[in-house]
Parts: sequence; structure tokens; C-alpha cells
Amino acid sequence: MGTSTKPAKGMRDLLPRQMLGRERVIETVKSVYRSFGFEPLETPACERLEVLLGKYGEEGDQLVFKIMHRGEKVERALASGTAAENDVADMALRYDLTVPLARVVAEYQHELPKYFKRYQIQPVWRADRPQKGRFREFYQCDVDVVGSTSLTVEVEVASAVATVLERLGFLDFSIRLNHRKLLFGLIESAGIPATLEGSALVAIDKLDKIGVDGVRKELSGRGVDGLAIDRLVQMLALIEAPQDAMLDRLLDAVVGSDAGRVGVEELRTLVRYAAGTPAGRYFRVDPFLARGLSYYTGPIFEVAVADLAGSLGGGGRYDNLVGMFLGRPIPACGFSLGLERILVVMEERGMLGSNETVADVMVAVWDEASIADSIALAGELRAAGLRVDLFPDLEKVGKQMKYADGRGYPVVAIVGPDERAAGLVTLKTLATGEQRQVPRVDAGKAIVRG
Amino acid sequence: MGTSTKPAKGMRDLLPRQMLGRERVIETVKSVYRSFGFEPLETPACERLEVLLGKYGEEGDQLVFKIMHRGEKVERALASGTAAENDVADMALRYDLTVPLARVVAEYQHELPKYFKRYQIQPVWRADRPQKGRFREFYQCDVDVVGSTSLTVEVEVASAVATVLERLGFLDFSIRLNHRKLLFGLIESAGIPATLEGSALVAIDKLDKIGVDGVRKELSGRGVDGLAIDRLVQMLALIEAPQDAMLDRLLDAVVGSDAGRVGVEELRTLVRYAAGTPAGRYFRVDPFLARGLSYYTGPIFEVAVADLAGSLGGGGRYDNLVGMFLGRPIPACGFSLGLERILVVMEERGMLGSNETVADVMVAVWDEASIADSIALAGELRAAGLRVDLFPDLEKVGKQMKYADGRGYPVVAIVGPDERAAGLVTLKTLATGEQRQVPRVDAGKAIVRG
Repeated sequence: MGTSTKPAKGMRDLLPRQMLGRERVIETVKSVYRSFGFEPLETPACERLEVLLGKYGEEGDQLVFKIMHRGEKVERALASGTAAENDVADMALRYDLTVPLARVVAEYQHELPKYFKRYQIQPVWRADRPQKGRFREFYQCDVDVVGSTSLTVEVEVASAVATVLERLGFLDFSIRLNHRKLLFGLIESAGIPATLEGSALVAIDKLDKIGVDGVRKELSGRGVDGLAIDRLVQMLALIEAPQDAMLDRLLDAVVGSDAGRVGVEELRTLVRYAAGTPAGRYFRVDPFLARGLSYYTGPIFEVAVADLAGSLGGGGRYDNLVGMFLGRPIPACGFSLGLERILVVMEERGMLGSNETVADVMVAVWDEASIADSIALAGELRAAGLRVDLFPDLEKVGKQMKYADGRGYPVVAIVGPDERAAGLVTLKTLATGEQRQVPRVDAGKAIVRG
Repeated sequence: MGTSTKPAKGMRDLLPRQMLGRERVIETVKSVYRSFGFEPLETPACERLEVLLGKYGEEGDQLVFKIMHRGEKVERALASGTAAENDVADMALRYDLTVPLARVVAEYQHELPKYFKRYQIQPVWRADRPQKGRFREFYQCDVDVVGSTSLTVEVEVASAVATVLERLGFLDFSIRLNHRKLLFGLIESAGIPATLEGSALVAIDKLDKIGVDGVRKELSGRGVDGLAIDRLVQMLALIEAPQDAMLDRLLDAVVGSDAGRVGVEELRTLVRYAAGTPAGRYFRVDPFLARGLSYYTGPIFEVAVADLAGSLGGGGRYDNLVGMFLGRPIPACGFSLGLERILVVMEERGMLGSNETVADVMVAVWDEASIADSIALAGELRAAGLRVDLFPDLEKVGKQMKYADGRGYPVVAIVGPDERAAGLVTLKTLATGEQRQVPRVDAGKAIVRG
């Protein structure tokens, strides 16, 4: 045949052993988000080209997978010899879940509730150069509240995220918390001119990676004067302040900046609101958390664990993005869980229960005359709540046992002619080799009890 | 702005009210399939072009959505002025879940278990002309057993499907059951020559739609001689035979055909195996069920309900398809549930519980000083197992009540200053207007009890 059977470049097949942990994580996310009153949304994999292009910067546009026109249209365009890329394509694959959300908010504005709380767990596609742990198709797992400027929204979103992580078994994470206005206030108070704010933000964003000296060098290279750099670096030392004194110290540092004061006050309110919530337990104010994306307008947060360089997810308030198709600002606050990273960390830490078996019991088949009974027994055991595999072929029982063992099934059940005559089932526990006979009506319970 | 915010042509946004029923159906499918020992598989949305093209016939190939090369490659191809469609594209969107299964079976042949039982629930894309109830993106929901020729597999697959439908609340469906070899045996016994078998199959497949006279006309148009047509039409009357006599009558009808006899014998075995299973309750032998796809090699089935012209799904044995990339036959039997159709029927019959509410209770906010307590109360109620929405903004309580009512939330909970001082929560049942105060620690239980 010769056709390669590998998945397309940068994409993955998710075999059952990968899917099982994955589905458990997704189910946990959904059930927690639902308990917070969030509702599910799905949008098509394909969007019209004009919906996506121009939304992710020039670099982003180049990473969008475009879908060709069909039939005559594309033939005509190609034959013209002067076709541009966008003459040949009319759609593109979803690049994130935020632009589709903005589109949905605009399209269904009269149907959606005043506060639209939605979660969306779907794959997105980006034509990145594939590298270790980075794929061209990956799931995003977003939760957003659209329609309110209240800080209760931030607390609810962060609480939902903290509850998901606790439920998954994470106990050692922190939610780094900052406010875009505080960050601008610090930059302003250091004496960095407004025109260089963006550059300063980019430099500060790298603090974790390049350290204080790196940030100093980067700021200098971007034209920030020495005195302002000194002041900013002095402020960076605030990171070491104890959490309970942090906000007071920050207020001192930004006292001359309107934005800075608003930022500190909102953080103070946020911390107070969150005191009795799951989020409150994990908040850690980090005044230099920047989060690359420039669209945030208020509080921002990022989930960190010690054994991962990046984050398990991040989010914040972005009041000017969701209204992009409506031409007016619509307040919103959200969080994107890094599903793929969560799975990597859980895998490495052995939190996924690697030895999970697919069935609680396998029903073996003794001979042709017993097959109908074996099938019926499988049904009875399922009715008792068990996951049951049925061996399909008439092979030697030893071979069937070996198969069950290889698949990690703990128990094999047999109804041969003797068992049938006596109304019994033979149960063999594979780990011990122990074998016992139980009345057929009790077989389910006997397996559950072990 | 001016950008249209409609979804791309032929595709749908699935808003929460559509998603809730959808997710419940999918969760039921997954949990039943798991109880039968099936494992989840996911494959990428995009496949390399060579994997998909040539697998679905010429007509199918034209319905494949192709994805363009990125960057320079595509620019060069377009500039050449002689680019063919396939020079510009390198991938395509998944068209079904069977070719990806065949690719996975080939690629991971040494890792997969001897019997690979997988379910796969993912969207597929086809550039069909959009029409009512027919979309360019839709979910397929497939279950297959790869690796065994045993008829126990048919019974297990059909039982799993029957259990799903029962669990969803369908009680009036039938599983029409036939065997490709029996169908060929009937055609052969009628005296239709082997070269016209395919044409006869196509005509018989339309029996439901065009009736006996239509089939007669169609056969005649395709060159089947009158005597053979008479014999076949006589056989069509067998459909009226009582189920328990059906297989005997069929054996008489095909006694001269080897294939026909094998078909009847296998159906007999299948019915015997299924006697004690959910599938057995719904089987109805239908000797002229053809199922369009020519790749079936053994038993075939299709789920029918009275109020739907098409089927809720279908499947059967196809021993020559899954091995397409390996160049050798690999036995397989599977079933594809028509998720979208199931949802349409459930919707029409009111089986989806249209008035489902997103939250069991909404916590209102009384004043600024009560916000932290309201947030904490929401958390306590969630810990008690409730789905809780929190009203975010400080609006008049009447307005908050109205919002809760509009959203269909049954209960609103309030902690104002009086409640806080007394350790109480006010609960208002919106349907009756009844209002009561309960100790805060008991609020969750009180709402659950109603």
C-alpha cells in the first residue's frame, strides 16, 4: 500500500491509555464548572476567514490553517495564475476559543442571558513548528463570564479553577494574582514614560526566565533611562515582602499613580471577597506577573506549580475584547486551563492511576453450547454495575486467561456445562489464581466485594 | 465592523440549551460503551490528503474539505499558475471515523490488544450542499470491535446500542437485522445474474421509499429480466412472515445458494446468542434490509423508530475495510449511532427535559458589606452538592429575583445584614413566592429537600 499511517505532522492520535485520564480530567472540569452555574458552548471547527484574520496579529495570522474553496471556485482561482492565498480559501480552523465567543456574543446578543457564563472545551489548531510537548492540534478549556464588571466574577472564576485543581488532586499550586492597572502604576511610578510602557511590560514578563539583571539589560536596550530602571528594580524587591504586608507596600509604591491606586484597591477587595473561598486559599499577590497578552484590563491570574516552568493556566479581566464584533466594549473575565499541561504534570506525578483497567471482569467462553449463556452472564454482570468484557473467540481457556491477565482484568468469570447445570459461575481472581464458585445470581455482588 | 457573525455556511453554534441535552446523550453513550469494555479513541481533525483521498469514491472525494499548505509553499504553487488543487493542499478534514480507525489499526498494530474495542465520538466534515437537518459539521458516534470473526461480537455491539437507547428512554425501537450473504442468496435464487447483483441491491435498498412497484420498475430499468423480477417480488412478500417462521421460510427460499444458506445459519445463531440480551428484545429480521454501503460482509443492522423516516443508526460486519492500510483483511464489526438524529427525535418527543435549569439556586447580593458572605454561601451550597449561580452586580433585589426567575432558577438565597447577625439564610422559592429563614449551616439541605 505504502501510504504512511502516521497522524498528520504535529498532530496526535489519542489512544485509549491516553484518553482515559484525559476524559476523567475533562469530566471533572465540566462537573465543577456546572456546579458554578456555567453552561457549555460549542462552536464549529471552521470559521469564515474574515472572522479570524486580523485578530491575532501578523504572526498569528500566519499560523492559521486555511480551508480551500471547493470545486469550480478553486479551479477558476488556480487557473487565473494570479490567485492570492485568500482567493483560494474561504474558511480557517479555529485558532482559539475567544474570537468564537466574541462572535457568539454578537450573533445571539438578544438570546443570551445578561450574564453569559460559559465553558468551552474544544480543540484549536495552530501551524506552529512542532516541537516536544507542543502540538498543532490541542484542546483549550476556557471558562468566561460575560456582562459584568463586578469583582465577584473574578472570585467565582478563580474559585472554580481552584476547585477543579483540588478535585484533580493538586494541593500545592498557587494562583498568582496581579492587576494590570497596578502593573502600569508601578511602571508609571518608576518614571518610565507612557510610550515605553509596552516595552517595559514585555521585559517584566520575562522576569521569571531572565532574572533581575536580565530585565535591567532588556529595559536599557529598549531605551528606558538608568534612573527609572533603578527605581523599577527597587520595586521588584517587593516580591519578597510578606503577603499580608504586600498590598500596603504596593500602595506606598504607586501612591502617585491613579491607575496604580485603583489596581491596589481592587486587589484588596478581591482578596477580601475571596477569603472564604477555594480561591482565597491559593491566592498569592505577585505585582510583576504580566501575562503576555495585552488585552487584559483588570485583575490577572496564573496558576503555578513548583515542578512546571510554565503555568497550568491563566486568565483575567478583558473588558475590550468580547465586544469586537459589536463595536462596543463588553466586560468579561475568564480563565483558560492548560489541559495538555495539566495532563503532563499529572502523568509525571503518577496522579492518573496508570494501571487503570478497562473492565472489572472478563467473561470467558467455554464451548459453543455455552456461548449464549456467557453472553447473558455478561449482561447480568453489567446490570450489577460492572464493566464487563466478553472474550469473543472459542480458544483454549488458558489462552483466554492469559489475554485477561495481559489486559489487566482482575477477574475472569466462566459458565461451562457443569456451572450451567448447577446454576453456578466460576470466578477466578487472576492476581492470586484463587478460584471459587458462586450462585449465578450472586456473581455480580461477589465480584464487587472482591 | 460589518463582519457577519453567523457561523460558517452549513455549520452550527451549539448554544447551552442545545449542548445540555447533547452532553447528556453523549455521557450516556460513553458510560454504556464503557460498561461493555469499549475504550475511547480520538484522532486528529486533519489527516494527510493521501490518507483520505480515494477512500470514499469520486463523489466523496469532492466533499472533502482540504487544508492549504502554509507560507512559501503555497505562494510558490499559486505563482506557478499551473497549480492543481492538490498541489496547494496537504491535509483534509476527517470525513468519517472509519478511515482514521483503519489508519490507527495499521500504525499501532503492535500496541493494540488482539481485540480492539473502541468507541469514538467526534465531529466529521463534509462539503455537502447544506439543507434542513443536514450540516457540514456533525458528530459521528462509532463503536467497533476489530480482530474477531465471532458472532458474539455482533451481539455485544447490538446489545450495547440497545442499552444506550433504553437508557435514553427509547422503548419503541426495533433493530432491523439482515445478513449480506442472505441478501445475495435471495438475489441469486431469484435468478438475477451476478453482474446485476449490485444494481439489484440498490433497487431493493429503496423498497421503503418506492414500494414494491417502484422496485419492480427500477429492476426492469436496470436490465433484470421479468421472470427474475417476479421471483424477487414474490420473495419480498416474505417480509410479512411472522418473525419466528421467518428464518425457516428464508432457508427454503435460498436453499440453492451457498451464500444464502450461510447467511440464514448465521442469523439463526445470532438470534439464539442474543436471546437473553437487550439486543434480543429488539431484533426484527428483515431480509431486504440492504444498507447502502457496499463494504458490509456479514450481518447488518439498522435501528428504526416509527416517527423517523431514516434510521437512528446502523452497522454490521465489514471484514475487508479496516485492513486497507495493512493490505490484508482484518475482521471488524461496528455500529454508528446517528447522534444528530437521536437528538432531533428526543427533542420532538420532549425526551430532553426542555425546562432543565442551569442552577439549583441563585445567591443574591444584598449590599456591598454582604458580598463576601454571599460568595462564601455560594461555596457552601456547592459543597452540599448544589449547582449555584451568584448574581454578580449590586442591583435591586427585585431585579435580581426577576433575573433568577427568567433563568428558571427555582430558589434564591439571601444573606443580608440581619441574616448574617442571626446566622440565618433567607430562601425564596420562586414558583410559590414562599419565603423562609433557615440556619445557614442547614441551607444546602433545606434547598435539596425543597
